Amino acid sequence: MTTLRINSDRLWLSLMQLGQIGATPKGGVCRLALTDEDRQGRDLFIEWCREIGLEVRIDEIGNIFARRPGTDPDRRAIAMGSHIDTQPTGGKFDGNYGVMAGLEVLRTLHEHGIQTEAPLEVIAWTNEEGSRFVPVMMGSGVFSGAFTLAHALAATDTQGLSVGDELQRIGYAGTHPAGDVPGGMFEAYIEAHIEQGPILEAHDLPVGIVPGALGQRWYNVTLSGMEAHAGPTPMDMRHDALLAAASLVTKVNQIAMDHAPHARGTVGYMNVMPNSRNTIPGSVAMSVDFRALDDATLLSMHNALHSHAELLQRHDSKLSIEIEQVVYFPPCHFTPTCIATVRQAADKLGIGHMEVVSGAGHDAVYVANLAPTAMIFVPCKDGISHNELEDAKPEHLAMGADVLLHAVLQLANGGKS
Amino acid sequence: MTTLRINSDRLWLSLMQLGQIGATPKGGVCRLALTDEDRQGRDLFIEWCREIGLEVRIDEIGNIFARRPGTDPDRRAIAMGSHIDTQPTGGKFDGNYGVMAGLEVLRTLHEHGIQTEAPLEVIAWTNEEGSRFVPVMMGSGVFSGAFTLAHALAATDTQGLSVGDELQRIGYAGTHPAGDVPGGMFEAYIEAHIEQGPILEAHDLPVGIVPGALGQRWYNVTLSGMEAHAGPTPMDMRHDALLAAASLVTKVNQIAMDHAPHARGTVGYMNVMPNSRNTIPGSVAMSVDFRALDDATLLSMHNALHSHAELLQRHDSKLSIEIEQVVYFPPCHFTPTCIATVRQAADKLGIGHMEVVSGAGHDAVYVANLAPTAMIFVPCKDGISHNELEDAKPEHLAMGADVLLHAVLQLANGGKS
Repeated sequence: MTTLRINSDRLWLSLMQLGQIGATPKGGVCRLALTDEDRQGRDLFIEWCREIGLEVRIDEIGNIFARRPGTDPDRRAIAMGSHIDTQPTGGKFDGNYGVMAGLEVLRTLHEHGIQTEAPLEVIAWTNEEGSRFVPVMMGSGVFSGAFTLAHALAATDTQGLSVGDELQRIGYAGTHPAGDVPGGMFEAYIEAHIEQGPILEAHDLPVGIVPGALGQRWYNVTLSGMEAHAGPTPMDMRHDALLAAASLVTKVNQIAMDHAPHARGTVGYMNVMPNSRNTIPGSVAMSVDFRALDDATLLSMHNALHSHAELLQRHDSKLSIEIEQVVYFPPCHFTPTCIATVRQAADKLGIGHMEVVSGAGHDAVYVANLAPTAMIFVPCKDGISHNELEDAKPEHLAMGADVLLHAVLQLANGGKS
Repeated sequence: MTTLRINSDRLWLSLMQLGQIGATPKGGVCRLALTDEDRQGRDLFIEWCREIGLEVRIDEIGNIFARRPGTDPDRRAIAMGSHIDTQPTGGKFDGNYGVMAGLEVLRTLHEHGIQTEAPLEVIAWTNEEGSRFVPVMMGSGVFSGAFTLAHALAATDTQGLSVGDELQRIGYAGTHPAGDVPGGMFEAYIEAHIEQGPILEAHDLPVGIVPGALGQRWYNVTLSGMEAHAGPTPMDMRHDALLAAASLVTKVNQIAMDHAPHARGTVGYMNVMPNSRNTIPGSVAMSVDFRALDDATLLSMHNALHSHAELLQRHDSKLSIEIEQVVYFPPCHFTPTCIATVRQAADKLGIGHMEVVSGAGHDAVYVANLAPTAMIFVPCKDGISHNELEDAKPEHLAMGADVLLHAVLQLANGGKS
């Protein structure tokens, strides 16, 4: 008997068809949350769900759940999913792949007349990207209780339009209570996603098994020295804020290297004042983004940053450095049994894989607070996402969906897949 | 017989009165070149010159020359001066001091009925600051032939108004040929100026003897790496343009330190792209400003900058660094005999002094191409200029003008002052 496989062409065509809604001239997608394009994408997804007999429910924050019943009335559902909203200059795969892969798993089971003991669900979470409305990961955040429904509904875009009003306008203000799952919370949740990084491509492997997502500490750093003329001011009488900032940038990178392989340290934003070529910079504002797989490492990085700032200030009495932490996301460890099931599915199918930690947040991070959770990564070209150039290979997408299929069958049938 | 001194109160009051024209609420001056305020300042200066019988001529670029005749018809003039245009948020002393000090020298001689063998002149050069019209040091630049009169007259401000039209409008489009001096080029030119740096203040000395002005090489540097997500991209797979830029900033500082005490190295401008806190910077544009007292040092600094950029590129195959030199000013060495005369004047008066190289350009740098030239620096508070907070002490200004007086007498009388 041949091993069950998803239909690679159908998965690819669905991704391309969904990618036409909000398509940009450069081959990307602009389908911001709760716009007309988002509504069209949601409508198409639901149409496809109903074609294979799935039962659709919409909750109060607009999350879409499409259920395929199981044979055992006592089993809770196994869920799959991700999001279909995009960045303003986003791609066809980020988020969309997880939803379409989940749908393709259910289409495959439908096509082959395969029933599962546990019910199965595919989910499209509302506003993961956060481009139009913050907070990001809004639908899964409300679902998991990270913040309240009222808080999310009150969020407004730059035009002053609210999530609540826009959900009504596009017809996706559902009535199902947010956070409620018929029959009880999911037995497991598996989210397939493009990696958004370069690791799988560099290792030439099609599947990433994701042990968890990095915790994050973000900082605003302000350095104040003394503005002065570049010509008449000798080097040893300067209080150059940019020179100190350069030392911090180098140190932020070193701190992350010291906590390899999972730690990240990035200065992405820097604003130099007065930013005149013949004036020694008087002040610099910059960001620091630290990520690590555990809180102890994040704390160690935090302390190293502060130590270096103190060292710089000891060497220049007229330099002051203020460091304000502005964001904290705790590290997320996915569920070992769930991760093992994904790995076994890949092994069974003979699909090459490696462990890849998620450096970014995903809906799965919030769902992991409620249910056993795992993620499956597939490579994307050059590690690029949040970009119209985002691309992925049909065969990689198919292999990720095959792993999803067999992991879900294993979970839903209790070892009988 | 007591040694001749200028009138400190009169010098101070003249500076304060001139500072009322274009006065800003914070105590500074906004008197941009060829504005109505500049005309009022010029009119007042000429009124003061005529009060002591000076003969005024205006040249084609609006430079004002006010002459006091000498007793020897074969002698060429000894000149003093600076400029009275200011930065948009400038101070009362930058430039204005050199013109008022020269005027005060002539007032003192007039008051005491002292004649000199050589004629004396005080000059107000047009548009030294370059805030409204470039090139900077326009009047002395045309006078010395650094660029043509036509080039200067055609320069326009951001409103599209030209130097030529604005000179006509304010009544300062003179007829005297630019570059011509009646009786022949100056025998010597001495410019008094606030230091615009912190050295004299740090040494608690009232007078700087200026051996020359630093040569300058300015660069535009563009670093291109690869933009990527801060989360999913491991440290060892990054091509972070800002990390490379930070290394260059540190190196620019080190290169200048390696050529102490006169070299300067400054990154004053930096623009990070896309400048998003959770995106690894894909490119950085930055300036480099190198200054040194001789061309060999400037070349050595130039080579060190390029070597470091090559080193960075060798360590990251996807990093490219482009360095474009956009400005070159040659180093300027003032005239040893003229410098010695200034030093002797300070010694004779018992005024403390030290050598202070000029880090910035001045009209004297252009005049030095035509005539023996020296400069006299006096301290300014905290080394601050080009700022409404610019300040100087009356006693320091007086001591600088006394040194100017006695240096000019020595030069004009051939040793009989």
